[in-house]
Amino acid sequence: MSRVAVYGAGSWGTAFSLVLADADCEVTLWGRRPALVEAINETRSNPDYLPDVTLPANVKATSDPAEAARGADIAVLAVSAQSARPLLDAWQALWEPRTVFVSLMKGIELGTGKTMSEVIAETTSARPERIAVVSGPNLAGEIVARKPAASVAACTDEDTAALVQAACRTPYFRPYTNTDVIGCELGGAIKNVIALAVGLTDGMGLGDNAKAGLMTRGLAEATRLGAAMGADPLTLAGLAGMGDLIATCSSTLSRNHTFGAHLGRGLSVQEAKTQTRQTAEGVASCKAIYDLGRRHHIEMPITETVVDIIHNGQSPQSAVRTLMSRAVKPEARTASR
Amino acid sequence: MSRVAVYGAGSWGTAFSLVLADADCEVTLWGRRPALVEAINETRSNPDYLPDVTLPANVKATSDPAEAARGADIAVLAVSAQSARPLLDAWQALWEPRTVFVSLMKGIELGTGKTMSEVIAETTSARPERIAVVSGPNLAGEIVARKPAASVAACTDEDTAALVQAACRTPYFRPYTNTDVIGCELGGAIKNVIALAVGLTDGMGLGDNAKAGLMTRGLAEATRLGAAMGADPLTLAGLAGMGDLIATCSSTLSRNHTFGAHLGRGLSVQEAKTQTRQTAEGVASCKAIYDLGRRHHIEMPITETVVDIIHNGQSPQSAVRTLMSRAVKPEARTASR
Repeated sequence: MSRVAVYGAGSWGTAFSLVLADADCEVTLWGRRPALVEAINETRSNPDYLPDVTLPANVKATSDPAEAARGADIAVLAVSAQSARPLLDAWQALWEPRTVFVSLMKGIELGTGKTMSEVIAETTSARPERIAVVSGPNLAGEIVARKPAASVAACTDEDTAALVQAACRTPYFRPYTNTDVIGCELGGAIKNVIALAVGLTDGMGLGDNAKAGLMTRGLAEATRLGAAMGADPLTLAGLAGMGDLIATCSSTLSRNHTFGAHLGRGLSVQEAKTQTRQTAEGVASCKAIYDLGRRHHIEMPITETVVDIIHNGQSPQSAVRTLMSRAVKPEARTASR
Repeated sequence: MSRVAVYGAGSWGTAFSLVLADADCEVTLWGRRPALVEAINETRSNPDYLPDVTLPANVKATSDPAEAARGADIAVLAVSAQSARPLLDAWQALWEPRTVFVSLMKGIELGTGKTMSEVIAETTSARPERIAVVSGPNLAGEIVARKPAASVAACTDEDTAALVQAACRTPYFRPYTNTDVIGCELGGAIKNVIALAVGLTDGMGLGDNAKAGLMTRGLAEATRLGAAMGADPLTLAGLAGMGDLIATCSSTLSRNHTFGAHLGRGLSVQEAKTQTRQTAEGVASCKAIYDLGRRHHIEMPITETVVDIIHNGQSPQSAVRTLMSRAVKPEARTASR
């Protein structure tokens, strides 16, 4: 029975706490706001994100990060990608030397272009053998309904991957182990950008053929970037790449998809931000991923189009038209290089 | 300006005729039933399959296969996979020595395990340089509405692929060339089987996470079989593999998906056949693909589950439960071998 601290009481942090609890872990869920923490402990549900869920008795909430860390075998990080570094900097003294870190965060750090496992390594001094990622087609709303889902538990160290797998394996949640951490992280980060692009085309009413083409070409550019950064193309073709992308683009609840759809229907970036309220991770990450692509000399037309629309004021209509009318090349040349 | 004969006046044959006509080809559309042919010529629409479409003046219909073949630069085959051989056997004397064959057919021949390009080669004596495939995320209903779609035009001979590309390229239909014919054909055939499995889980109400996982693992087993048969894994990750699979599984109009959903909701195979009326290609092809997998020693658990349900009388509920609870392995091991 593992003791697990989960940092971040948003919808995925809360849903993953339920999975860990169902897998017989003792879970302490850290939330920033004392009022939310109190509500979780009193009502056994998360009124802000998952009001209809009843959390098992072995999930306790706290707003004290040190209390959560105490005696934890595993520290799960489920805060937003851009807030990871300041939080982890503040928490440096909390960790036990043996604590394994698990990132549920999907994004790339703006400015540095670092993945979340790299941010964890730099801020905790943990070695890669103690840093894992869990990522896959895991819509929180279905997970808490205990509908079946597969996922990936990745760590360069196979034993750690197996430990994380065991900590969250339940009859409905099936994590496969993988040693390709960077591949899983890129898949998780880029899918938000592609979901934004797919939202755009959906908002413009372009249909399922365009959507499927965009997802396929989007994953192809993710795979090109991944290969340049040392990822295994099979990881991007797997649950943390293709799988997560499909689930995100199927869901009408995806913030990134919704944000893109607002733009596709003619709202301005500012209006779309006001409408969606919560952060759409792809809005920040698209720029970081575009910069990574440039650094590695990888052509990423879909990411570039999203950046142009969100950050450079291009109109979605003309940008998507340009994307769709790019010169027709042999498929393999664009897919592999 | 190419002269093109299109054999098969079902929805995809008719929609592709519209694409060819928009790309300035002279199109003769062959249909088996004189009444349908007459209706197409008189109403400029296809009352049985695409009643709301107006076909351009450069599409003419005929029920005489020889009339369609006369002077054709390209013969497009859009009949059902299992009827290809008897038809092509009957048409042997029709072809000009230079005619290029293009298969739009998605299926594997029962009994022989041959792909459609192999059936064309055997029945026409055309060499591989004259046999092409067009396949991709191309739902007919959206194509005839001229919504944007990408596709793949594949032939082992790059010049032939480029010729086919030119014959069907329009502002809304963008074919990429590829030399991997077998990869495109396997993608097109297997997606019908996976769509059937996805329909099953949808009918059972298992949700988008399960659906995304199934599509990902399904494409992985298609890729394993493809690799054993000489296909390029990138083709399966491309428009004719992943793209076609996503479009098919998004569409509530897919016959294979609908057939699976009926079974998932508790109908018998016979009842589902009665309900869907038209042929669901995956019902025949799953057995042929399963046999191919066995011949090449490839583990194909999703295809096997579909065969068990459709041909061996297993209950969907217990079969899908078994599939979902298979031993959890490292992802790469199951993805690559």
